[in-house]
Amino acid sequence: MPGEFRMTRRVQFVETDLAGVLHFSNYYRWMEEAECGFWRSLGLKVVNPHEGGHMSWPRAATSCEYFAPARFEDELELTLTVAAVGERSVTFEVEFRRDGERIARGRSTGVCCIMSDGAFRSTRIPDDIRSKLT
Amino acid sequence: MPGEFRMTRRVQFVETDLAGVLHFSNYYRWMEEAECGFWRSLGLKVVNPHEGGHMSWPRAATSCEYFAPARFEDELELTLTVAAVGERSVTFEVEFRRDGERIARGRSTGVCCIMSDGAFRSTRIPDDIRSKLT
Amino acid sequence: MPGEFRMTRRVQFVETDLAGVLHFSNYYRWMEEAECGFWRSLGLKVVNPHEGGHMSWPRAATSCEYFAPARFEDELELTLTVAAVGERSVTFEVEFRRDGERIARGRSTGVCCIMSDGAFRSTRIPDDIRSKLT
Amino acid sequence: MPGEFRMTRRVQFVETDLAGVLHFSNYYRWMEEAECGFWRSLGLKVVNPHEGGHMSWPRAATSCEYFAPARFEDELELTLTVAAVGERSVTFEVEFRRDGERIARGRSTGVCCIMSDGAFRSTRIPDDIRSKLT
Repeated sequence: MPGEFRMTRRVQFVETDLAGVLHFSNYYRWMEEAECGFWRSLGLKVVNPHEGGHMSWPRAATSCEYFAPARFEDELELTLTVAAVGERSVTFEVEFRRDGERIARGRSTGVCCIMSDGAFRSTRIPDDIRSKLT
Repeated sequence: MPGEFRMTRRVQFVETDLAGVLHFSNYYRWMEEAECGFWRSLGLKVVNPHEGGHMSWPRAATSCEYFAPARFEDELELTLTVAAVGERSVTFEVEFRRDGERIARGRSTGVCCIMSDGAFRSTRIPDDIRSKLT
Repeated sequence: MPGEFRMTRRVQFVETDLAGVLHFSNYYRWMEEAECGFWRSLGLKVVNPHEGGHMSWPRAATSCEYFAPARFEDELELTLTVAAVGERSVTFEVEFRRDGERIARGRSTGVCCIMSDGAFRSTRIPDDIRSKLT
Repeated sequence: MPGEFRMTRRVQFVETDLAGVLHFSNYYRWMEEAECGFWRSLGLKVVNPHEGGHMSWPRAATSCEYFAPARFEDELELTLTVAAVGERSVTFEVEFRRDGERIARGRSTGVCCIMSDGAFRSTRIPDDIRSKLT
């Protein structure tokens, strides 16, 4: 299905905390793994050379809701979908499931930016990328 | 001021990414540091012994908006405020500033839970804690 | 081959730093992933229920040598071998390669411990585990 | 004392694991914080502009021995010393103590490098830096 990416990921020991569960901040790291996997599936990277600088997608906003805890060595299935494409931004939604049970759902909005000399400048999403996203 | 906590934190090298900025997921780690600092300032821990088990505050939802990048060795000032107190949950808001400029703003909602035998069961916020929060 | 475990792992964005390479501390996280994979391949976990408490392998010593940098989205092949088995400890060695080129080599020594009430007490490696290790 | 740097650091919630202790990999992150603090105390950064590129200190080797576990909210005192200065490298040693009790001791060797176009090239330590280190 276009605009979708799936991956499976196991909870690592270092990702748990003393409450015995996957720490809430790590869901954001997993969301990014799914995003990068999605970009790769399009033949792109989250950071690409572009007109003498680099194009990247710094986040403008991220969020996550948590429905049930995940534990050490649990295998979660992540499903990323493209939720919205704007003039200069893209929003992904990622669902986390374990054996079909919904564990969490996250969203992240990245802004299409040219990076040069350490600064970010937003730009319109190039047409060739836009057509792959929609 | 009651219901407020301030701390200063420097961006560490390991917290940057190849784009040269504080990785977006690390804001959530910093938010938690501010929350734990707040609980400490009340004489509490984010995890407390309670009636034979432990009381803790697993997150139900977190979010963050990013306004400007932070870079290696930047010193950010975090201000946590109690944004809402429900029957069983508390919502914190954390502002991130650098020399007065707003860098990011995050929110996190934790649910008052008893942990025992590795399971979480939500419970009403005890009155002594509620009175410290409001 | 007994006493060996292989896995492949891609460098994630969050694992890079502003120098553009896999941060040196993350090699230790990867070493642990290989260790846990090895334990799983033996039908064990790095933390197992044992005689009313849990058995685990807290590290006594770890080390790593770095031969070449790894970069975003590089795929590294890790090969774990059992380097030594003592009365109460086991030492693993993990080689990191990219297309055959040696990137790093780490070692880690864990001590067989019973955890109960939050304390660790070292113990002889049980015979059934020892026989799987050697 | 020249060639020495001290700092205090509290164990954060996210830094613990399901065994309830500071995860062994995080000691390396703390060692780097001490190193960067040491460079700052000399008026330097771990990454400095240098002759059109940047000078940095990628690690050639790191190691750590662990003597006792550290737990959530423990305050550890870190003492960094310059253990050796070579032609092109510097070795730091960091001791971790809690109320005087030794918790861990780590070492890390960094190589003086010029980074340009994403590559590292080792170089002699400039005299002005060498004189500050010894």
